[in-house]
Amino acid sequence: MSTGFFEGLSKVTYKGADGDGDLSFRHYNPDEVVMGKRMEDHLRFAVAYWHSFAWEGGDPFGGQTFERPWHPQDDMGRAKMKADVAFEMFEILGQPYYCWHDADIRPEQGSYAENLSTLNEITDYMGEKQEATGTKLLWGTANMFSHRRWMSGASTNPDPDVFAYAAATVKGCMDATHKLSGENYVLWGGREGYETLLNTDLNQELDHMGRFLNMVVDYKHKIGFKGTILVEPKPQEPSKHQYDYDAATCIGFLRKYGLENEVKLNLEQGHAILAGHSFEHELAVAGAEGMLGSIDMNRNDYQSGWDTDQFPNNVPEVALAYYQVLKAGGFTTGGTNFDAKLRRQSLDPVDLIAGHVGGMDVCARGLKAAAAMLEDGGMEDALKDRYAGWETPEAQAMLNSDLETISNRVLSDNLNPEPRSGRQERLENYINKFV
Amino acid sequence: MSTGFFEGLSKVTYKGADGDGDLSFRHYNPDEVVMGKRMEDHLRFAVAYWHSFAWEGGDPFGGQTFERPWHPQDDMGRAKMKADVAFEMFEILGQPYYCWHDADIRPEQGSYAENLSTLNEITDYMGEKQEATGTKLLWGTANMFSHRRWMSGASTNPDPDVFAYAAATVKGCMDATHKLSGENYVLWGGREGYETLLNTDLNQELDHMGRFLNMVVDYKHKIGFKGTILVEPKPQEPSKHQYDYDAATCIGFLRKYGLENEVKLNLEQGHAILAGHSFEHELAVAGAEGMLGSIDMNRNDYQSGWDTDQFPNNVPEVALAYYQVLKAGGFTTGGTNFDAKLRRQSLDPVDLIAGHVGGMDVCARGLKAAAAMLEDGGMEDALKDRYAGWETPEAQAMLNSDLETISNRVLSDNLNPEPRSGRQERLENYINKFV
Amino acid sequence: MSTGFFEGLSKVTYKGADGDGDLSFRHYNPDEVVMGKRMEDHLRFAVAYWHSFAWEGGDPFGGQTFERPWHPQDDMGRAKMKADVAFEMFEILGQPYYCWHDADIRPEQGSYAENLSTLNEITDYMGEKQEATGTKLLWGTANMFSHRRWMSGASTNPDPDVFAYAAATVKGCMDATHKLSGENYVLWGGREGYETLLNTDLNQELDHMGRFLNMVVDYKHKIGFKGTILVEPKPQEPSKHQYDYDAATCIGFLRKYGLENEVKLNLEQGHAILAGHSFEHELAVAGAEGMLGSIDMNRNDYQSGWDTDQFPNNVPEVALAYYQVLKAGGFTTGGTNFDAKLRRQSLDPVDLIAGHVGGMDVCARGLKAAAAMLEDGGMEDALKDRYAGWETPEAQAMLNSDLETISNRVLSDNLNPEPRSGRQERLENYINKFV
Amino acid sequence: MSTGFFEGLSKVTYKGADGDGDLSFRHYNPDEVVMGKRMEDHLRFAVAYWHSFAWEGGDPFGGQTFERPWHPQDDMGRAKMKADVAFEMFEILGQPYYCWHDADIRPEQGSYAENLSTLNEITDYMGEKQEATGTKLLWGTANMFSHRRWMSGASTNPDPDVFAYAAATVKGCMDATHKLSGENYVLWGGREGYETLLNTDLNQELDHMGRFLNMVVDYKHKIGFKGTILVEPKPQEPSKHQYDYDAATCIGFLRKYGLENEVKLNLEQGHAILAGHSFEHELAVAGAEGMLGSIDMNRNDYQSGWDTDQFPNNVPEVALAYYQVLKAGGFTTGGTNFDAKLRRQSLDPVDLIAGHVGGMDVCARGLKAAAAMLEDGGMEDALKDRYAGWETPEAQAMLNSDLETISNRVLSDNLNPEPRSGRQERLENYINKFV
Repeated sequence: MSTGFFEGLSKVTYKGADGDGDLSFRHYNPDEVVMGKRMEDHLRFAVAYWHSFAWEGGDPFGGQTFERPWHPQDDMGRAKMKADVAFEMFEILGQPYYCWHDADIRPEQGSYAENLSTLNEITDYMGEKQEATGTKLLWGTANMFSHRRWMSGASTNPDPDVFAYAAATVKGCMDATHKLSGENYVLWGGREGYETLLNTDLNQELDHMGRFLNMVVDYKHKIGFKGTILVEPKPQEPSKHQYDYDAATCIGFLRKYGLENEVKLNLEQGHAILAGHSFEHELAVAGAEGMLGSIDMNRNDYQSGWDTDQFPNNVPEVALAYYQVLKAGGFTTGGTNFDAKLRRQSLDPVDLIAGHVGGMDVCARGLKAAAAMLEDGGMEDALKDRYAGWETPEAQAMLNSDLETISNRVLSDNLNPEPRSGRQERLENYINKFV
Repeated sequence: MSTGFFEGLSKVTYKGADGDGDLSFRHYNPDEVVMGKRMEDHLRFAVAYWHSFAWEGGDPFGGQTFERPWHPQDDMGRAKMKADVAFEMFEILGQPYYCWHDADIRPEQGSYAENLSTLNEITDYMGEKQEATGTKLLWGTANMFSHRRWMSGASTNPDPDVFAYAAATVKGCMDATHKLSGENYVLWGGREGYETLLNTDLNQELDHMGRFLNMVVDYKHKIGFKGTILVEPKPQEPSKHQYDYDAATCIGFLRKYGLENEVKLNLEQGHAILAGHSFEHELAVAGAEGMLGSIDMNRNDYQSGWDTDQFPNNVPEVALAYYQVLKAGGFTTGGTNFDAKLRRQSLDPVDLIAGHVGGMDVCARGLKAAAAMLEDGGMEDALKDRYAGWETPEAQAMLNSDLETISNRVLSDNLNPEPRSGRQERLENYINKFV
Repeated sequence: MSTGFFEGLSKVTYKGADGDGDLSFRHYNPDEVVMGKRMEDHLRFAVAYWHSFAWEGGDPFGGQTFERPWHPQDDMGRAKMKADVAFEMFEILGQPYYCWHDADIRPEQGSYAENLSTLNEITDYMGEKQEATGTKLLWGTANMFSHRRWMSGASTNPDPDVFAYAAATVKGCMDATHKLSGENYVLWGGREGYETLLNTDLNQELDHMGRFLNMVVDYKHKIGFKGTILVEPKPQEPSKHQYDYDAATCIGFLRKYGLENEVKLNLEQGHAILAGHSFEHELAVAGAEGMLGSIDMNRNDYQSGWDTDQFPNNVPEVALAYYQVLKAGGFTTGGTNFDAKLRRQSLDPVDLIAGHVGGMDVCARGLKAAAAMLEDGGMEDALKDRYAGWETPEAQAMLNSDLETISNRVLSDNLNPEPRSGRQERLENYINKFV
Repeated sequence: MSTGFFEGLSKVTYKGADGDGDLSFRHYNPDEVVMGKRMEDHLRFAVAYWHSFAWEGGDPFGGQTFERPWHPQDDMGRAKMKADVAFEMFEILGQPYYCWHDADIRPEQGSYAENLSTLNEITDYMGEKQEATGTKLLWGTANMFSHRRWMSGASTNPDPDVFAYAAATVKGCMDATHKLSGENYVLWGGREGYETLLNTDLNQELDHMGRFLNMVVDYKHKIGFKGTILVEPKPQEPSKHQYDYDAATCIGFLRKYGLENEVKLNLEQGHAILAGHSFEHELAVAGAEGMLGSIDMNRNDYQSGWDTDQFPNNVPEVALAYYQVLKAGGFTTGGTNFDAKLRRQSLDPVDLIAGHVGGMDVCARGLKAAAAMLEDGGMEDALKDRYAGWETPEAQAMLNSDLETISNRVLSDNLNPEPRSGRQERLENYINKFV
């Protein structure tokens, strides 16, 4: 029985050149085989519950613009209606996964015990829907940034009772994720950082955050959760400074607290941009360390200094992202979550479908271009050629020697290396053959 | 015998309120005791040779504006005249230290052997001047970014011969620094990064950089150099991306390559700004890890997206910087290097003196304010009070327990923590009593 | 009869060096005469109703943190309680002015007629309070950006009915402002811009905005309002692009639509920063055109890409702002509105007082420093000297000649001008004598 | 007779899908008709002399990387060799236009008279080459920012003699441009702005700049130059603030000084980005005012805060740019100048060819996509539909009425407009069908 919310909209199918990229796919063909794997299995698309169903259209200067039948989101009946609509959308789109924060799916009730109870009730309800529809959970996570109790941090809060509340909250969410066979569990520390250094003990807060994450990993093993624990870098917003600034910072943190083999990264295009990086940079950094877990695919407006969470729409950029994903071996437990929300002026149910369809098509084009480049091998050959000098035994021996030895050789050989072209424009042209 | 370059300008002295902050000090009184230490010994001012004597006033859209008697800087006679003028300025300013890159002090001759020979000749010459004047060397460093051979990196170059050239160059500079009793040796990796990811093997380059830095540390121990090895974070420029992005990134890198107890950071205000941080943030991050080595004091224009290297002039900001320095225990081998250059329109010798005098006065005010705040203790007390909850045995026990135990307590105690004011405005007001 | 909200807090007074800058003034002494005018009459401080009483502490990732007795703000009884508290705060602070948006002071009721009726009722109530306390209205304005009806703009909306609604709304607010003897009327076009160029007819929207502003000016004259009409530049947020980008853009707009003699600018520090300018730049641009009307004094975090609206706390920066205000002749109808909100973690009533006291003290210091510099005259003398060449009859004649005549003179005189030092560091040092 | 510089490289031709986009075109087919006009006549490509032949590969931290046979660029013989190579490249690429600054083409000799004489000699030489090859001059301009005499501005210099020198310089360049049948004359005011407000009389400088531009326009008419006078916005760099900040600022300036019908804009992608705008925004602003003259096509790295002047390579972005150009009626005297330089590591002559070929192909794809969208009409129809309400006589009457009349109608009709979806995602999807 349908809620009627998406009345008139039917399952989105692949139509190739006859598709409109709006309510039918022009490029995303789940069964098409790319580099030996079905496109669906490469991309592993997920819909984000928060962006599509919980956000009401507000921004810092304006209130709700969306008026959904499940608003206000404060009772269980409407929480279930929201889930009904969500799974209807999953059927329409046909993406295999979805993701949630606890606060997206259950009503906020006040006490921890009540929130846990409603979380369990709604996740049972959603579990049945997963069963019925085949849609799976990519990851669950706890919203520990919206309620005022988290205003000064969760695991990094100056108040140990908030740390405790956070620990309990994550436990509840991990249990629910495990119950729903979620494939990953994510931690995004929106308030794990500071608003002002003046009232902050950086060192103590980082130690608490490190300890907290170790508890999370221990609990994962205890309950036999086979998914991946992911942390998600973001430089700032809502905090002035967030400890998980970017991929390199997170990796340094994980190494410091002995977690580099236990935790991977969930990387988001918009967060990369806010940190002063390209998305492919963040992916390459994580990939180089074997810590690329999953991606939050969206785009950030380059002229806005805050998180705009728009649907991706630039194929050349998306192709470079998937190129890094493929180079890192592709997703295992991770996937492509659309951490993207409609613009607040996009009021209609059809906009919700069209936003996702457009995003999925863009990702499909990006993936195919990336795969074609890898199969062609032109870029990898150029890379190999550029570093070929390091393949020699002499070069490797030098790496194992010392300054003095090397210095002597420079003098004796009167070494004066001549630079070679970096060929950037030609590599950029190469890419433009594929996108 | 004077070069006459600073004709009419005499030793800058402290005159208190009668000073003009331009050619006499209003605030910098070397012998004044602050928190039990002479101001000079706290601040440990250094003049940067590059900024004051080697830079000719060019920018990306314009050429040389300064016309100094030691231009062009391509022969040894003029290199010595430049040194004569530099030490005359040191006498005028009375700052205890200076710093150099090899390329600032010796003419570029072409071959490594010749450059080494002129480096040794000019550092002998400068050693005599150090002896004669008492001015000391805060640090030496190698310029491995200006010459075209470094265009694709030094230790991270795709060409192993450039790695070799870099190793020899650093060895030569370390030897010279050691000979001149330098108190630190700095590495700034301006080209250790990439212009495009497309032609870059991130992983291999980072491994080479890690190996190189280990060689540097080994050589330090081999020659008995007692100073500190410092790396200097900067996010970009000239590279699109620089591996030593910011303090957190460098610390993660040092830890990965086993160098966290051997290498510290040389932090620069302007580089912090370009990385999206406040200077006090970078200092706090390094301080929290015990890796705060030295500072490059300048300021970056907040509206310019490149490194402006201006003399510091905002006392409240500088006070927050020294507050972090003092909290970290103050400088040991490090100091306050003016990594600041005149604006290219500031043509006159007197501008060179006045730029430094203004900067020294601003730092002196900042230091005194920071010391007064620490001695008053108001901010530290507020901090202690904010985190007091963590002092209890229960809180400490919780840190050593696990998610399940904590979760049970949250449920059994029906924990519902109430947020407390962060008091940011009051702390900001507190600071304004001191600056 | 007190509401008890500020229990235990009493009137803030000037105590000079004995003040704490938190609950007593160290620098703001209303009756102190600066450049022949009382400090209060220079600064003309105003409290912003929105920031201090209407904002509930939310941000894009979190909800309400403040829990005030007048929440939720949806009935007239609590609207009056809010006014009671506001005027109690005005008494405590002693600042002469306040400011409002219609939506800050009246409950949102739905229809235009009801909103007008409650606006009239609450402004009558506030009028009595103004009468009783002597606090005056610096400006009123209409909030035409929060309600979903404005999501696509007010005067620039594609729907002419929204234009009509905006016209009626501004009329109602102008009437109320006039009734309360407001000294200015402000228009900030938060949604007058676009979210995407793809759905926007730039030209038509600008024409509508120009026509709308002309109607506002006509109505001002019709009702005999003697105050100043002010527009407020901001580059973006909430819109991706806002038409009133910065001072120069607004001035160009006013000139295009024939309004350059009718409308002035209300400039905000934070908006200047977001537009890539220093605050003093925006003030200088407006001052140079005689269009500097009023200021929204706050500060924007330099590391955050959104509007942070913090209380000002950097005296050297604030001094440069008032230097421009004084150079432009000081305020006439305008003043210093604190467009500043507490950090959302600053929960206590005392934070609200302390935030303003700190801001007022910082402004007082800035004003006194600016006045001292102007009275000393050192900077103005340097300026005069730098441009002295233009005072000659020859230079003036050249301005009235043509390229050919000038070119002939360059050739015949073999002109080869030699650059002179811009003396920037010395001017910066000069300022540091005063701040 | 060939210089041999491009040895082994031959004329680049269109090969469609068989092209490599590197040394043959895949998309740029000069004779292909798009919207009724040859592609070559739409795009009107020009090579920038400075970027391709005069820049030596330096950046703020490094010197020359390119070693060209015409270096150093200080005598007439090598200036002619440079011209020989340039015209050889024009033949290889087949683009119809080129552009220069005076300082790019003639050696710097010191005195104005000598520079004028060498300018005349080299432009005679280039005129013969134009004749021989058919390559035409899109625009000429004067470099009034590199030599130290311009360090404090050209027409806005505090020294009237520099104003005079600037006037003579522009006259000489206009004469040369006229002689070579240049189709436009450009002014870019790199130093027309300030390094610090402290030493700047904003108002006087703007008046001088306005007067100067009027002289330029007068001279154009006097000599019968039929081309367009163009100014080029840029927000900063090299100046901290440049008066010609962006399109809106320039248009306001032109209107103030009575030049809005005489002068148009030369817009650059990179400058738009640095000003906080998208390129299409700047084009739309200029187009809306009928002031879109010509474009400097390049791209700016989104993560770099300075002018990177890279070859364009993102087709979706370029398509949006040409969409605005076509909507504004296409180019008349203007064209697509590649204001783009090789990366300094791209050392080889082949890189110079490949950089341009890639850029030309990207522009061709962008143009074709833009044309297809306009011919399809989907986006324009959506726009028309969105603003349809304004077509009614009632809406037009309202625009000619007043606040009071409108307010009465809102009350009497109980107007309460309901928002409509802005459909941004669907429009973005629409575009992705074409790129």
